[in-house]
Amino acid sequence: MEIIRSNFKSNLHKVYQAIEEADFFAIDGEFSGISDGPSVTALTNGFDTPEERYQKLKKHSMDFLLFQFGLCTFKYDHTDSKYITKSFNFYVFPKPFSRSSPDVKFVCQSSSIDFLASQGFDFNKVFRDGIPYLNQEEERQLREQHDEKRSQANGAGVLAYSSPNTSKCPVTIPEDQKKFIDQVIKKIEDLLQSEEKKNLDLEPCTGFQRKLIYQTLSWKYPKGIHVETLETEKKERYIVISKVDEEERKRREQQKHAKEQEELNDAVGFSRVIHAISNSGKLVIGHNMLLDVMHTVHQFYCPLPVDLNEFKEVTTCVFPRLLDTKLMASTQPFKDIINNTSLAELEKRLKETPFSTPNVESAEGFPSYDTSSEQLHEAGYDAYITGLCFISMADYLGSCLSPPKPCVSARSQLIEPFFNKLFLMRVMNIPYLNLEGPDLQPKRDHVLHVTFPREWRTSDLYQLFSAFGNIQISWIDDTSAFVSLSQPEQVQIAVNTSKYAESYRIQTYAEYVGKKQEERQIKRKWTEDSWKEVERKRPNMQVGFHSNSATNTVGKRNLSPSPGEGSSEDRAPGDISDLEQTESCAESLPEGRRKAKKLKRMKKDLSLAGSVADSPAELFEVPDTW
Amino acid sequence: MEIIRSNFKSNLHKVYQAIEEADFFAIDGEFSGISDGPSVTALTNGFDTPEERYQKLKKHSMDFLLFQFGLCTFKYDHTDSKYITKSFNFYVFPKPFSRSSPDVKFVCQSSSIDFLASQGFDFNKVFRDGIPYLNQEEERQLREQHDEKRSQANGAGVLAYSSPNTSKCPVTIPEDQKKFIDQVIKKIEDLLQSEEKKNLDLEPCTGFQRKLIYQTLSWKYPKGIHVETLETEKKERYIVISKVDEEERKRREQQKHAKEQEELNDAVGFSRVIHAISNSGKLVIGHNMLLDVMHTVHQFYCPLPVDLNEFKEVTTCVFPRLLDTKLMASTQPFKDIINNTSLAELEKRLKETPFSTPNVESAEGFPSYDTSSEQLHEAGYDAYITGLCFISMADYLGSCLSPPKPCVSARSQLIEPFFNKLFLMRVMNIPYLNLEGPDLQPKRDHVLHVTFPREWRTSDLYQLFSAFGNIQISWIDDTSAFVSLSQPEQVQIAVNTSKYAESYRIQTYAEYVGKKQEERQIKRKWTEDSWKEVERKRPNMQVGFHSNSATNTVGKRNLSPSPGEGSSEDRAPGDISDLEQTESCAESLPEGRRKAKKLKRMKKDLSLAGSVADSPAELFEVPDTW
Repeated sequence: MEIIRSNFKSNLHKVYQAIEEADFFAIDGEFSGISDGPSVTALTNGFDTPEERYQKLKKHSMDFLLFQFGLCTFKYDHTDSKYITKSFNFYVFPKPFSRSSPDVKFVCQSSSIDFLASQGFDFNKVFRDGIPYLNQEEERQLREQHDEKRSQANGAGVLAYSSPNTSKCPVTIPEDQKKFIDQVIKKIEDLLQSEEKKNLDLEPCTGFQRKLIYQTLSWKYPKGIHVETLETEKKERYIVISKVDEEERKRREQQKHAKEQEELNDAVGFSRVIHAISNSGKLVIGHNMLLDVMHTVHQFYCPLPVDLNEFKEVTTCVFPRLLDTKLMASTQPFKDIINNTSLAELEKRLKETPFSTPNVESAEGFPSYDTSSEQLHEAGYDAYITGLCFISMADYLGSCLSPPKPCVSARSQLIEPFFNKLFLMRVMNIPYLNLEGPDLQPKRDHVLHVTFPREWRTSDLYQLFSAFGNIQISWIDDTSAFVSLSQPEQVQIAVNTSKYAESYRIQTYAEYVGKKQEERQIKRKWTEDSWKEVERKRPNMQVGFHSNSATNTVGKRNLSPSPGEGSSEDRAPGDISDLEQTESCAESLPEGRRKAKKLKRMKKDLSLAGSVADSPAELFEVPDTW
Repeated sequence: MEIIRSNFKSNLHKVYQAIEEADFFAIDGEFSGISDGPSVTALTNGFDTPEERYQKLKKHSMDFLLFQFGLCTFKYDHTDSKYITKSFNFYVFPKPFSRSSPDVKFVCQSSSIDFLASQGFDFNKVFRDGIPYLNQEEERQLREQHDEKRSQANGAGVLAYSSPNTSKCPVTIPEDQKKFIDQVIKKIEDLLQSEEKKNLDLEPCTGFQRKLIYQTLSWKYPKGIHVETLETEKKERYIVISKVDEEERKRREQQKHAKEQEELNDAVGFSRVIHAISNSGKLVIGHNMLLDVMHTVHQFYCPLPVDLNEFKEVTTCVFPRLLDTKLMASTQPFKDIINNTSLAELEKRLKETPFSTPNVESAEGFPSYDTSSEQLHEAGYDAYITGLCFISMADYLGSCLSPPKPCVSARSQLIEPFFNKLFLMRVMNIPYLNLEGPDLQPKRDHVLHVTFPREWRTSDLYQLFSAFGNIQISWIDDTSAFVSLSQPEQVQIAVNTSKYAESYRIQTYAEYVGKKQEERQIKRKWTEDSWKEVERKRPNMQVGFHSNSATNTVGKRNLSPSPGEGSSEDRAPGDISDLEQTESCAESLPEGRRKAKKLKRMKKDLSLAGSVADSPAELFEVPDTW
């Protein structure tokens, strides 16, 4: 269902209902661009730390506009054992609410725009018909202004004139306006004495004159009349005066208040949909969703925090449960049987054995998509496909149990290991951003940071390191790159050799990261490290990941996708069966939530006991993310 | 006529013809925004120097996209004594030419976009169907790449294969590819021996395999075959090999060259229209056209120079003759009889006496506009209206002659005073940017530059200067403003008083400008001052303006538009009659050009002789630009 400015209000209840009844949602965003700085390759350096990656995306991607938001809700129908979907395609644009409201500037990237154009994207629906929105601070300010205006009017105990500049004492009327004001008063006296006339339209006049009229009337006629400014078709403003009794006055007051409230809600606009998703606390699914999540928080909640940990806090407040299908598909047990994790390819792959196409149907009144012909890159459709991929993969996990479980719910313990971990594009050995705790810190003791003259090319680096056998180069910018050697032992030799070099400089990865962190620490005030406790509690798990990834990396030469390469301690599907006991699909939400919390505790206890091998976390082999 | 990507090439000859036959053009641009920094009010401070204004516009406006370009050509028809117009509306978008071509990022301002949307602007025509373009440097690079490719191919003396990586010696084929290449060679041998077969389609293969094939064939079959890479519908690339004799080979070569030239021209795209306008050397008219000119130069020629004088040089190269109808309407003899110089109001005013509506007709095949119903802000229509305004005003000048001249040509001496002077929005006493020489330097000895705490409001400034009578405040930013006093004598008193102040600081305008210039001089390397000579030659004129503007400013209190206010040494229309002698409308171009040059010399001589009062420049009273 396509939602634009003109049909937003009339369909909002449908959106709310879909959110209310859903078991989970899938979302997707389309943006006006990806990177306003370096090319995407340079933006996603393989040796980025999660902190660096966050900083880069924040710096180079947040000036673009999220202008199409896809939401697909999935509700399980027990009777027919199928999912009922409702898919929404929202067009979003920061139309200024009034003259004084923020005038948002955003960047467009020609290649992104051209790509969307080639997919038939309708830009008029964004720029002419996009639904406006406000972030939380803007909404707060607007509500404050509104309340202030009301309390001024009420506090004065008199008529709530449209203008806040009312006055309780006589007004000083400039000489040249006295005649004008006297004429107005004369007309009002006539109105009040007349028995037939109820209203009086004054001639259009200047803003200054209107102000004088308001001030004069507020003092002269505290009761019995209602004053209002209207606009002619030619946009000329004029004042209408009506005789009213106390009851009528109150009715008009309320009417006006209701109208203002409605205008306010209109200004908050699309943000109300995001708030509803957020408040539901339900599982939100996306495919490679880090940028979607960042844009959503940035555009509809608050500018992104400086610090990654703060971002994690904000994000888990907005979206308590996220799941990234790209991460899921890149992780065991899927990693070995899924070659290409792009959304289009993943969708195709999941139609084949050992997967099965989920039983899904569009709700009545919602157009259904045909996955065999539909084009990707309409946000609503991409969200729909993402949801299908999730169901196929979740059901596959269920099918591996003994006895097999035909349908895996959005609150199943089976999928918990994938919660709140967002896929990181092309980061070596850090497959995801962990929203619920500290990020993985793979050892990178075979990696060097090299600085060199601008003229250097890849061949110069190969030559420099020719003595060290196979190397792998990851450019940072024109004058620096990471170089990973095949053996960590070679690192010190390389660093020692470089001491006598003038044109280039080599340091270890650890030295480089240490210096960068130092710089950052000097630059910013540290907020309380909210993860300290978690870190203290999970030593085993971390160490587990460390050694694992280190083993993985050493000896690896090629960054191109090569599924099945690297250590893959295959886990028989049956191994996870003990985790799936009493669950059934589509439990009632409170029940599900309680269970989720309980399971979370369980999971923690498991890892605390050091039995990492049995915990769901063990499902995560470090995926080959390239 | 609407021109988009798909009909650009087929209509280009019409555009060229219209440019070729026209007497003058009017242009107009629509942009994706106006200011990405301060609000427009802050952007256009009344005490900006032309240099400052240029720097601000360059910094805060050039990241927006000029995405609709209106061109209206006007050709005088002597037989019917009317103008024949051809109006074009070009949609422009920097669609990347190839993967390696620049990926332009541009900013959109919501309020501007929303405004255009409210006017019914079709954004799909920009983003989906916009005509691409290249600036001069991009075009040069592309042509160079192309020439290099060709010369490589030709230099090798062999077949010009599609890939430049051809080779004259045997290629080293990796072990695992040998079988593949051998099979290809086998197929080609079969093709060469067959009498029926003319072509051979190889299976789609990898880029590396294609490279190997090209290299092998270039060495093995320097003659007799033609090799080409094509794409399947699924975008898979495959190689086609054809048997060809020498003649056929040459024909294909030429075909390919022609195709490449065409692709190159397609990439240059809309810039070709601007080049044609530029090369014609004809008069180009715009309304308040500084931003249009800046964007046009920036987008289709080169990034704007750092220095204003360099900008003037570049601009006069691109557009040798410009005329701004807003400046014209703000200058005597029009200033006194035209209240509002906005395009819409100007157009209305010029339909009334003493002006007359020009006799204008659309050329056959071109849609005609109805000025009584048409909406503004379609660039083609705005350009059309701008041209009409010019004709009305020019004809009015003619009607003031004795005997009256019914039609004033685009090369008439009467309009020369308006050449190459671009209207400056809201700059006190500097009505225009002078492209042909140094800018006006009005005395500002009644102006103070004040720095103060961020908390200060306008009222604080009024209080600070309460002893000085009427003042006029012009905010620069949150902590500084210009304050102009009614008497220059008060300036020193204010500066002296402030010496003991701690919270604020006052300096004279001269001190402020001096310091700023010093900073700039330190910052940048000075290019040869190209105006030095002109400056030396025109002392009288400058002094004339100085004293004039100084008189004008002193005693002025209100910056709001107040036509007729200020000194207006009325010039009887007859006074300029001696300048109009033998001219007639629509002279042939070479004749007109020669005359224009002669008149230019004449004008210079006049001002050199000090007879400012009689020179056309005297037409410029300093307009009340607010």
